[in-house]
Amino acid sequence: MYENLAIVGATGAVGRLIRQLLEERKFPYKTIKFLASKRSAGTEITFNGTTHTVEELTPESFEGVDIAIGSTPDEAAAEFAPWAVKAGCVVIDESGYWRMKEDVPLVVPEVNPEAVHNHKGIISSPNCSTTQMVVAMKPLHEAGKIKRVVVSTYQATSGAGVVGEEDLINGAKAVLNGDTYQNKAFAHQIAFNLIPQIGSEKYEGYTSEEMKMVYETQKIFGDDSIKVCPTCVRVPVTNCHSETIMVETERPISPAEARELFEKAEGITVVDNLGAGEYPMPKDCSNKNDVFIGRIRKDLSCENGLTFWCVSDNLRKGAATNAVQIAELLVRTQAAV
Amino acid sequence: MYENLAIVGATGAVGRLIRQLLEERKFPYKTIKFLASKRSAGTEITFNGTTHTVEELTPESFEGVDIAIGSTPDEAAAEFAPWAVKAGCVVIDESGYWRMKEDVPLVVPEVNPEAVHNHKGIISSPNCSTTQMVVAMKPLHEAGKIKRVVVSTYQATSGAGVVGEEDLINGAKAVLNGDTYQNKAFAHQIAFNLIPQIGSEKYEGYTSEEMKMVYETQKIFGDDSIKVCPTCVRVPVTNCHSETIMVETERPISPAEARELFEKAEGITVVDNLGAGEYPMPKDCSNKNDVFIGRIRKDLSCENGLTFWCVSDNLRKGAATNAVQIAELLVRTQAAV
Repeated sequence: MYENLAIVGATGAVGRLIRQLLEERKFPYKTIKFLASKRSAGTEITFNGTTHTVEELTPESFEGVDIAIGSTPDEAAAEFAPWAVKAGCVVIDESGYWRMKEDVPLVVPEVNPEAVHNHKGIISSPNCSTTQMVVAMKPLHEAGKIKRVVVSTYQATSGAGVVGEEDLINGAKAVLNGDTYQNKAFAHQIAFNLIPQIGSEKYEGYTSEEMKMVYETQKIFGDDSIKVCPTCVRVPVTNCHSETIMVETERPISPAEARELFEKAEGITVVDNLGAGEYPMPKDCSNKNDVFIGRIRKDLSCENGLTFWCVSDNLRKGAATNAVQIAELLVRTQAAV
Repeated sequence: MYENLAIVGATGAVGRLIRQLLEERKFPYKTIKFLASKRSAGTEITFNGTTHTVEELTPESFEGVDIAIGSTPDEAAAEFAPWAVKAGCVVIDESGYWRMKEDVPLVVPEVNPEAVHNHKGIISSPNCSTTQMVVAMKPLHEAGKIKRVVVSTYQATSGAGVVGEEDLINGAKAVLNGDTYQNKAFAHQIAFNLIPQIGSEKYEGYTSEEMKMVYETQKIFGDDSIKVCPTCVRVPVTNCHSETIMVETERPISPAEARELFEKAEGITVVDNLGAGEYPMPKDCSNKNDVFIGRIRKDLSCENGLTFWCVSDNLRKGAATNAVQIAELLVRTQAAV
């Protein structure tokens, strides 16, 4: 039974959303504890009408805990997950640290729910830019087998945490007032600018964020033959990542068929009426759990190509929602056993 | 001889830049006149130290004029260009109206200078999003023959004129102050948002702006076999368009070779050192005439694919600079005859 929960990194932006989602979705539990670094320990939070004190994360934190949802920096995840596993707890981890490790399934419930069972104590949730893309790819891949993806991202500042959002908001105020602003999260001004680098240099001129989109996509689909060419760009948008996605499939899929597939798919909302000026936009997709798709059309440069526009709340489906869905999947599939 | 000039639409954002460029580049002329709509006629402007009064554009405006550079809306261009041609004047037109007409060469001097001579009075300058892309494509096409392009744009609000910039700046102020703002240029809020539509619905789910990138590219290279799949997106950036460009070539071109080709090409500046956080960004490329290229790397999804990031000032190389360069080309090649 998964009835005793722990939320690790409970006071961060994603941690706060995880708490909110557990309340909204009436996640079943007997006990719950909220863990964070020493700095945040002692903070009082209200959950389902009860006040809880955030506890400091220690090797002993996971005694009697069945399931832990973690949203922490990579280094913290590397440290705490083994503590949890040792205590017999299953960890659902948001960080990048465990995703590509063998024996750690990388799960998006709409895409590879079956993978959730192949864990040895740790289950990873993918990077935000990957998650929305694989949700969009799934029905197309099932219908026509995707061979190749060319993706360009338009990523919001909330992906860089609270300081990322501050760099945008306070940076914009400074530009508008003719003041200077010292960036905290980004290497360059983001207000009224674009930064074509997310993460550090990783492989052959690609960044770490870009290579996540390559490797995580292959792992989630269990198919190394899916080739991905990503360019990740930070844009001056507060929340919600957007992507232009071009897919080449083995069997051609018409825009009409793609629309039908998307409309039937779990976790996808189609907003696609160009003539009426209707398509997904970041300002409309914030605080929603779905992946939104529009501008569906045939690729004019390739016989079996299809292209579309995809927007999703990077803190929700890109992080908190996906983690909570994995926990729900664990609880549900166990209940069915 | 091209010695008597007219600037049509002289008081607009691009018209102002054309005047500035003619001064900066010491464009040779004997007489110059500045034309605009009735609304702007009577405005006094200073050019090369002399005060000129802007005249109203009429069918008689082009008597004795040898060369007219026009930056007006399509409807105005449709009307005035025949007046000019009838008076024996050569028109270099920035608008979209004449670009795809037979007998109207569409010229980017770095790409197809030879086309400039095939005019019957009207020469067109391409759409801003096309121009920077074809400048980038040219050396690669010459070296390896481009078969296919997948391009995603990140287009600045200045492309929608002064009101476009106002929608961004005043819209951002409103968002930051919790006020409401009524958009003038755009159908949706652009501040802290993205709009995946530029222009109107045109063909099979593509917008007019996107189809310009398809057709204009083929016309400029004189090669309908070059296939282009564009997605055009408006971003909350004041000035300079950015593009992720993926090209597939007949002969493979390595990133190292591409870098060398770009570095040797006219009109291109390479800024490409990811490890040092160096790449072109809109904030750095404003008020410059070149096309800036960075993030050059092999496409991971295709054998003969190459991908890169391209930024250029859409009011300069995307409009005013290209038009003035066409005028210079005309003057220079005539002088050589």
